[in-house]
Amino acid sequence: MPLKKSPLAPAAFPSFPEIAGVRFACGNSGMRYKSRDDVMLAEFAPGTTVAGVFTKNSMPGAPVDWDRKILSNGTARGLVVNAGIANVFTGTAGVRTVEETAAAAARLLSSTPEQIYIASTGVIGDPVPTEKITGLLPRLAETLSADGGETAANCILTTDTFAKGAVGTARIGETEVTIAGFAKGSGMIAPDMATMLAFLFTDAAIPANALQSLLSETNEKTFNCVTVDSDTSTSDSVLLFATGQADNDLPESYDDVVLHDFKRALKDVMTNLAQQVARDGEGASKFITVTVTGAESDASAKTIALAIANSPLVKTAIAGEDANWGRVIMAVGKSGEKADRDRMSLKIGGVLIAENGGRASSYREEDVTPYMKGREIEIEVDVAVGSGSAFAWTCDLTHGYIDINADYRS
Amino acid sequence: MPLKKSPLAPAAFPSFPEIAGVRFACGNSGMRYKSRDDVMLAEFAPGTTVAGVFTKNSMPGAPVDWDRKILSNGTARGLVVNAGIANVFTGTAGVRTVEETAAAAARLLSSTPEQIYIASTGVIGDPVPTEKITGLLPRLAETLSADGGETAANCILTTDTFAKGAVGTARIGETEVTIAGFAKGSGMIAPDMATMLAFLFTDAAIPANALQSLLSETNEKTFNCVTVDSDTSTSDSVLLFATGQADNDLPESYDDVVLHDFKRALKDVMTNLAQQVARDGEGASKFITVTVTGAESDASAKTIALAIANSPLVKTAIAGEDANWGRVIMAVGKSGEKADRDRMSLKIGGVLIAENGGRASSYREEDVTPYMKGREIEIEVDVAVGSGSAFAWTCDLTHGYIDINADYRS
Repeated sequence: MPLKKSPLAPAAFPSFPEIAGVRFACGNSGMRYKSRDDVMLAEFAPGTTVAGVFTKNSMPGAPVDWDRKILSNGTARGLVVNAGIANVFTGTAGVRTVEETAAAAARLLSSTPEQIYIASTGVIGDPVPTEKITGLLPRLAETLSADGGETAANCILTTDTFAKGAVGTARIGETEVTIAGFAKGSGMIAPDMATMLAFLFTDAAIPANALQSLLSETNEKTFNCVTVDSDTSTSDSVLLFATGQADNDLPESYDDVVLHDFKRALKDVMTNLAQQVARDGEGASKFITVTVTGAESDASAKTIALAIANSPLVKTAIAGEDANWGRVIMAVGKSGEKADRDRMSLKIGGVLIAENGGRASSYREEDVTPYMKGREIEIEVDVAVGSGSAFAWTCDLTHGYIDINADYRS
Repeated sequence: MPLKKSPLAPAAFPSFPEIAGVRFACGNSGMRYKSRDDVMLAEFAPGTTVAGVFTKNSMPGAPVDWDRKILSNGTARGLVVNAGIANVFTGTAGVRTVEETAAAAARLLSSTPEQIYIASTGVIGDPVPTEKITGLLPRLAETLSADGGETAANCILTTDTFAKGAVGTARIGETEVTIAGFAKGSGMIAPDMATMLAFLFTDAAIPANALQSLLSETNEKTFNCVTVDSDTSTSDSVLLFATGQADNDLPESYDDVVLHDFKRALKDVMTNLAQQVARDGEGASKFITVTVTGAESDASAKTIALAIANSPLVKTAIAGEDANWGRVIMAVGKSGEKADRDRMSLKIGGVLIAENGGRASSYREEDVTPYMKGREIEIEVDVAVGSGSAFAWTCDLTHGYIDINADYRS
């Protein structure tokens, strides 16, 4: 299934730095993709702390169950990711797959299985040929390399059209630390979580409980603002590994002022990756930012923003480069949230289109026609009932989405 | 925009009977569609009772506001429907359009404006050229005819590819009464309400309050089970007019046993129309029935059924004739409703595919492959936590949907 690279992709994958204490290796299992790597092993130095956030779908895959269970240990020594089969709705066989994979990796990395994280994406319900993963791991363990980040970012993809990476640096006290991460996902993407898989690595030393608070908070304003098709995956996982090799002063807690700059950098990296996921939405030709203000609360604003961002009619209109703004009004109304029809206002590309219950008298459609032909579309709605605000990132709904999804397994 | 007739359409429009006390007339206003009728006037005999149910979208059009306001009067003398411009988000001008239209029709039908119902569908936000409607009404009033039902059913269409009619008869006591109705709608269709417009006419004599209970109850199990694209329209209205000309014994209340057969017939007619709406879903190539059992409650079952029926990934898989059942599992999980992953079961076309948390051992994909190529797809899910049940009707998501909606206004 050769997919054309999304026109919204960044110019290039970033120069992916080595993170002290992290090594990668990739290989082909032959389980689904024949001519590319599809299994990734990452090794973390002893003492690495870990944080994770996972899908809220009530049918999570066996890897999500596993990761959730071991997360309370707070430390990680390895990560195994496979692409092509999701190990979801696979019953006790799926649980065994995870246990055997963790055990095999643990032996190779001199770890316990409870320090090995697992993630899988791909077809739901198909059984996983476990030995194709476990049989590959010894060779991967021999080829672990600190400079394998970009290869790893490619290895975990499924219907993605480009690898998604982001890099940042921050100071913790006097020490400069690095954060680098990659993500995959382009369909079955909706909050909570919004991406399918994202892995973040830093050489910073941060206690696990503080790391978890950092990740959970930042996730709300990044990956949980992305939607492609409103379908919440059963596999979504974001994991943040901190190797501690930078030897910075250990923050006392999440609130420690020493973490201020790290929070900024983490948010930048996660924002970058989350936007790339929407930019690689299946069939995407436009990147859409929806901003809602004046809502009853931030949560209400987010519900409205997602109602707009998930509306097939809004998304097809944008695909058609049509400023059919009435559909945005419809989506606000279907959200079920409080909005004042007769006082709300709507802008597209900064142009005031509607206010006071009707079309703005200043509005001429030709004012936004050229804007609609662009790659980046901004929709701003003020619902005029309060001060809550939120945003959502999404993409348009095109023939490409149908092509990819009507024919995914064949 | 010539659209090919849906392959799911019934063989023919039903023979539409004259309903004593109802007359129709249609004409072209020239406001949007140039070469077909787009305004319908219906006249009802004095004493006609009326019931209505409307969209729950919080941005309703001016016609919905108007109908809601006058519904408590309980009687109707006329109905004016236009296609092409929805009169939604049109501010005070839209309110004037409705008031002037009702006043003009009332003068012609020797009625009060508060007995004239209005419905409009089409583009949201465009101003309505009121005089194109009111200027046409005198001519329509002169051509009112009892046999104009099929013409009227065609006149109200927008992106529909076929007119949707249904007819039934029932006994109230010793008297045979007729129910006939037509509906329009094929996109921006989701509960509540599920259709855009449906009008039902009967010669039965039924008090307005009983009529309202009949309509509201039946609507829950018919139009409110249809979804095409999860986008809830701002115009959805279902109106039921009872002229009383059949001169049956007047039921005392909704609970009167004399209404038993009428309830059955009304449900048959509304079921028929509701299914036709899904069969004319924009771009539809398959009609899908989702049945959910074993839920915590009927309401929970309906939420799950709609999560499946609205999932773009489920709908594109069916368009691709792909039994990608894992996406159904995903949709159950994203619904947020209680379901037992490790005990639930799933059938497609009656074939058991999944049970006890995994693929059924008896399942072979070739067992459903021929079935997926058919026009009618049945999905049955038992979520194994209780005894609640519900169903939903929808259609697949195809290139046709994108074609129609990326280019609707041009």
